[in-house]
Amino acid sequence: MTGKEEMTSVTLDLLKKKMDDFAKERDWEKFHSPRNLLLALVGEVGELSEIFQWKGEVPKGLPDWKENEKLHVGEELSDVLLYLVRLSDICGIDLGQAALRKVQLNAIKYPVKKSNDE
Amino acid sequence: MTGKEEMTSVTLDLLKKKMDDFAKERDWEKFHSPRNLLLALVGEVGELSEIFQWKGEVPKGLPDWKENEKLHVGEELSDVLLYLVRLSDICGIDLGQAALRKVQLNAIKYPVKKSNDE
Amino acid sequence: MTGKEEMTSVTLDLLKKKMDDFAKERDWEKFHSPRNLLLALVGEVGELSEIFQWKGEVPKGLPDWKENEKLHVGEELSDVLLYLVRLSDICGIDLGQAALRKVQLNAIKYPVKKSNDE
Amino acid sequence: MTGKEEMTSVTLDLLKKKMDDFAKERDWEKFHSPRNLLLALVGEVGELSEIFQWKGEVPKGLPDWKENEKLHVGEELSDVLLYLVRLSDICGIDLGQAALRKVQLNAIKYPVKKSNDE
Repeated sequence: MTGKEEMTSVTLDLLKKKMDDFAKERDWEKFHSPRNLLLALVGEVGELSEIFQWKGEVPKGLPDWKENEKLHVGEELSDVLLYLVRLSDICGIDLGQAALRKVQLNAIKYPVKKSNDE
Repeated sequence: MTGKEEMTSVTLDLLKKKMDDFAKERDWEKFHSPRNLLLALVGEVGELSEIFQWKGEVPKGLPDWKENEKLHVGEELSDVLLYLVRLSDICGIDLGQAALRKVQLNAIKYPVKKSNDE
Repeated sequence: MTGKEEMTSVTLDLLKKKMDDFAKERDWEKFHSPRNLLLALVGEVGELSEIFQWKGEVPKGLPDWKENEKLHVGEELSDVLLYLVRLSDICGIDLGQAALRKVQLNAIKYPVKKSNDE
Repeated sequence: MTGKEEMTSVTLDLLKKKMDDFAKERDWEKFHSPRNLLLALVGEVGELSEIFQWKGEVPKGLPDWKENEKLHVGEELSDVLLYLVRLSDICGIDLGQAALRKVQLNAIKYPVKKSNDE
């Protein structure tokens, strides 16, 4: 990681590029079909769920969690993200633009109530 | 969406800000606990899987898919991403930095084979 | 459903037979490959999760849930079960015997603590 | 496992009883809330998916899989089933009857085409 990456906000395109380079360098492109990546994503969502499974309700910010547990959460969230970015790329979909568009669709679907509407 | 957003690469911080504003404007912050968001994420992964479920193996780029089917894939990928970004934020985790760190850990775990190693 | 089925405990073999007949009658066997069924299962787990996603912690027995909500939970639990039974059958695995064996393995992995061990 | 269990078809009620005894003997009932069990189920679906993730399309019966791989599939299918049975019980839902009812609803939703309908 260069200092530059640490200081600026991470883009989806940067992660896409890193995943693509990673696969190419290891000759793993042959494994990265849409459904293989989708099942890998499901696997990572399972690992993320396992961290939370016996916890009961968990407060915002995970205040009582140990540092290594929080690090583990970050790793599993990242694994989900990295496969999601890779799956999008392999499907030929611009995930960042799709996400901005989806936020707009959601805003139309769930309009903000004005106080005098209530 | 402004023209600027369309032209530059989307950052995870931008999506985090949009999700936070979205929740605040609708008074939905009270619903956004870690496990609520995690189950919402699982729900969206389910919807993404449903698109692929009866397809058999699907080639890279989804070449024979109709335009509205590809749009649908983009929407479900986005829903997963948006809940993932929100879940990370609510857990107090910098998803972008965590993802860069995970790529580095993966590179150590799976070193590139030099051709003369084989 | 015959009266007999209603009175006796449901077996996994009965559900397997019903799923097999169902697929044969509709000429759906061609769709029932292992990974198609696995993704369908993931889709149903997503639908089950959606019922619980904004609820916060939920007490045992779902005491304050409306009757139609509980019926909905039963339907989604059933969808997961039916695809699980079908997936097992298509993989050539006897799910009932595998489950009995797994309970035994779990009992070895997590032995019961005697009170004087504590 | 008694010889009797090995010879007769496994019922959902038997598995429910075994899971209940298992939890009681280990004083684990306090952990078995609906959402804890649901997340544990998602975790097991993730482990099941991991077995299939890099395989590409897999034929019916898993013909080329090693015996220990098939055993592993049986164990993960069982883990999903056992948490599903336990979740149903904790929600106060009769999973077997719910599943029979769902098969009937599916038969109404997807009627069998008679050959002269086509």
